[in-house]
Formats: sequence, structure tokens, C-alpha cells
Amino acid sequence: MIEKVTLIGLGLMASSVARGLINNKESIKVIGYDISPEVRKIASEIKIFEVVDDLESAVKDSDLTIICTPVGAIRSVVSEISKYLKKGSILSDVGSVKKAVVEAVFPLVPKEVYFVPAHPLAGTEESGPNSGFPELFKDRWCILTPLENTPQEKIKIVKDFWENLGSKVTEMTPEHHDLVLAVTSHAPHLIAYTMVGVADDLAQVTNSEVINFSAAGFRDFTRIAASDPTMWRDVFLNNKEAALEVLGRFSEELFALNRAIRQGDGDFLFDYFTRTRSIRRGIIEAGQDTKAPNFGR
Amino acid sequence: MIEKVTLIGLGLMASSVARGLINNKESIKVIGYDISPEVRKIASEIKIFEVVDDLESAVKDSDLTIICTPVGAIRSVVSEISKYLKKGSILSDVGSVKKAVVEAVFPLVPKEVYFVPAHPLAGTEESGPNSGFPELFKDRWCILTPLENTPQEKIKIVKDFWENLGSKVTEMTPEHHDLVLAVTSHAPHLIAYTMVGVADDLAQVTNSEVINFSAAGFRDFTRIAASDPTMWRDVFLNNKEAALEVLGRFSEELFALNRAIRQGDGDFLFDYFTRTRSIRRGIIEAGQDTKAPNFGR
Repeated sequence: MIEKVTLIGLGLMASSVARGLINNKESIKVIGYDISPEVRKIASEIKIFEVVDDLESAVKDSDLTIICTPVGAIRSVVSEISKYLKKGSILSDVGSVKKAVVEAVFPLVPKEVYFVPAHPLAGTEESGPNSGFPELFKDRWCILTPLENTPQEKIKIVKDFWENLGSKVTEMTPEHHDLVLAVTSHAPHLIAYTMVGVADDLAQVTNSEVINFSAAGFRDFTRIAASDPTMWRDVFLNNKEAALEVLGRFSEELFALNRAIRQGDGDFLFDYFTRTRSIRRGIIEAGQDTKAPNFGR
Repeated sequence: MIEKVTLIGLGLMASSVARGLINNKESIKVIGYDISPEVRKIASEIKIFEVVDDLESAVKDSDLTIICTPVGAIRSVVSEISKYLKKGSILSDVGSVKKAVVEAVFPLVPKEVYFVPAHPLAGTEESGPNSGFPELFKDRWCILTPLENTPQEKIKIVKDFWENLGSKVTEMTPEHHDLVLAVTSHAPHLIAYTMVGVADDLAQVTNSEVINFSAAGFRDFTRIAASDPTMWRDVFLNNKEAALEVLGRFSEELFALNRAIRQGDGDFLFDYFTRTRSIRRGIIEAGQDTKAPNFGR
């Protein structure tokens, strides 16, 4: 069983994990470390972690070490901590990209330490140690991408950990994870960033007009386009291939719709706009959104 | 003052107007007409309008007639009702496109009837006479695009009408309205439809994966991509020029971001993802969205 968990990188994810554990009244001890002294200071004040000032004391006695940094920092963290990791312990992460992380981290993991990569699909536009809340993972999926030779009981420990925080857990290969996320997350984020960038740039329409009249659709893009820039830079640098594949398909489709608008092809537009409704219904039925009109918006 | 209002086209907008008036306990009589006998039947049963079976009796005594049909049907409705409109009365609409509507409708409006085009910026993914709710317009903008020679007191009546339903009202030219909405609404909708279409089409990722893992970003697109197909077909057929201008700018920006991903240009991505955060903050400060984490989602 897990008695001590270490969270490295004290942002939205780590602080939500810690608050979730407190909420569950679990007796697990939670150690926190962040590379930034300022973040460590803030994190100490909110008293949800035992914050330590060096990586050795952070990880040496832990049963489970979860790296909660942006994807681009995971490799260097693992290379620093690998010699301190406890024998028999589990190393995990919360990175949004899995193939590049597995390739970078696996060669650094010592024998008798078990690397179980994880990606909890949850987030808000907020970041930092004060942004966490215990329900962040409730009813959200957590995808594990374990390596083939990992003992089932080690995978089970990580599975149970996320289920206790309210998540639904599933497994897939790192490659498939990256393609699924390119469609459901990475491409939508890039497209939202692009649309918000265009609106910000357009000389004929003022920013205050964009802001005031955003409820007509634009607003739905801005939440995800306000996500942490470092995290998203790293996602695109590390899931280049799958992201470009999906974005290429997106550009093709957008050209077809552009042409239909230019040519006044109402039937093409109507048919396209009809078939996309069924996916929305599926999402509501799967409990991943609500049908309530205008909810919160 | 307005004693009698006629709503033509009994969907989300008309049923929300009627419910809003009932909620306000206003003594205004609300007449409803829809071209579909089936919709008229449903609309009669919910008892929020006095539903009539022909356009003449629908409009002949009304002080304010609001056409709530999709944009593509407005012209033919006006050509049918213009001879029955009461002298001194006001004709309005709720169309999402204004220049094409003004050009089509204005020549058909009789002397001594005042056309005050309006666009309440509110909606949900639902449609039909049962989808309305009284708070739909609360704190949402309504844009009027009156013609230059319209008497101020007629514009004021329409302004007061929407303010009583909870809206904030502003005025602009039809041309500027169409460009502002192309940015804040039409382009975002087309892009959302495109992204959902791509996800639906991608052979390597199943629809159930798209649905289950949609909370990672994709979900935010699906609400607007589930909007009424007829309405959106008409929007793009009638706001072709502004929509194509904004979509052209979007494609340019998307290419630049694609290139940055392909070349691994992390600085470009980071800078781009940083500047889009300020627009989001503006939207929250303007009360057009909430900062609550994961609200309703």
C-alpha cells in the first residue's frame, strides 16, 4: 500500500491531487517539491503538502513519485531523482503526451523502480499551487500507458490511486494515446489559440467588441486558449507527428467548407452541420458534459 | 406603447421571448405563427403564445412583429405579411446576419411601418418551441442595426423591449455587425463544425474514444457545433464576404503555427499562447463568462 506520495511540480494538478487526498481523509503523507523557491513558499503556506527544498529528501522514502511538471521538464527531473528513488517504488507522471515521455524517461528509470505513465484528462485555465480543487478529477478519465513488462500489481496501485480521486481509469499504448489526444485535445487547443489570435489581431474589430460579443460562440474557445503556455508549448514540441496529422486533416476539411461558402452550396453546409450533432449527443450521454441550456455561460 | 407582439417562427428565440414576457408579468399579448402545422400544434399546447393559423391574423393588429425564422426565410415572410402590417407598427427580426437581411427586407416594408433590425446574441444548442427559457437574454447583448431615417422613438421601443427581457442593447451599422459577428460567432462556429467533423471522420480513433476523452478540450467545441443546421447554413450563405475574410485570416495564422510545430519553434508557440490569455481575462471581467473552475463541465 501507499504511505507516502511525492508530487514534483506544484501547480494545478499537484495541488488538486493533494486536496483530493485530504478530502478523502486518506492517511497518505504528501511531500511536495517545486524547482521555484517562490512556488515552494506559496505551496508551504497553503498547508496541503509537506514542502521540501531538495529532490533527494522529496523522493527517497516515497512509495509513489508523480511528476507534475510540464512535459518538457520531465526528463531532466527523472535524471536528477533516479538515483534517490526507493527500491520497489513507483514513478508516474501526469503528462499530456506519452510516447515522447516514455522514450525519454524509460532509459533513466533504475531497476526495481516501476514507471507507470499516466495522463489525467482534467484541467482548467488556472495554474499555480492555489488553483487546485479536490473535485478536479471527479468523473474524468485517467489514461495509463504502462510498458508491457510492468507487473500488474504496480499498475493496479496507480489505477486505484486515480480511482480514489474520482477518476475513471483506462489503458492504451503511448502511440494511441497521443493520437487520441491530438484529436480530442491538442488540435482543439491549437485551433482555439489560433481563433483567439485572429480576433486579437483584426484591425476592423476592436478587442472590446470581441469581448462584449463573445457569448455568440467565440467565448467557448477562450477558456482553452487561456491554458498554461509552457504546458502547451511542450505538448506541441513533443506530439508533433500526431498533432500535425490531425491539423492537416482539419485544414483539408476547412478548405472544403470555405469552398462551399464561396460557391453558395447550401446543401453541403446543411449536411455537414447535421452530422456533427450526433457526436455532441454522445458526449452528453457519456456524462462528459451537461445539456443544461447556457450552463454557467 | 406595445400591447400586442407577434412572433413568427416558433423556435428557441420566440419561445424564450414569450417566456421572458410572462416572467415579467407584462400585459403584452403574444401572438405566435409558424409555417409548420406540427410546430403550431406543439406551440399551442405549451400555452405561452396565442397561436394562429394564418399570417394575416397573426400580424394585422400587432404593434411589433418580430420575425424569428432562420435568416434564409425572412425575405419571403416579409413579402407575405407586408400588406397586412398595421400602420405605425414596428417590424423587427432576430437574424444573425444583418446586411443581407436589411437589403432583402427594406424594399418590401410599406411606408408607415418601421423596420428596426435586431440581433439578440443568445442561444443554446437546442431548437423548437419547447427549448425556450425566460433567462436566455439575461445579461446578453442585443445589437440593433437601424436605418438612418428611422424615428428615434421607434428604435427606443425595440431597445426597451430587449432591455425588459434582460439584454444590454447597442447599435451599429449592418456591415460592421456582420464583421464583428463573423469574428465572434460565425468563424468560431464553422471551425467548431470542422473540428467535430474531423474527429468523426478519423479512422484510427473511434467515436467512443472521441466522446469519452472529449473533456480534454474537444468538448468545448461540440456545444456550438450542435447548433441548428438550417440557421447556420443561412448564416454562411448570407454573410459570405465577412466570414470568408475572417476564415482566410484564420488559415494564414494556422499555417504559421503549423510551421512552428514542424520546425520545433518553442519560442514562437510560447509567445502566441501567452498573448491569447488577456482576451480571456477581458471576457470574464466583462461578465460574459465565469472564472469558476470546470463550471458545469
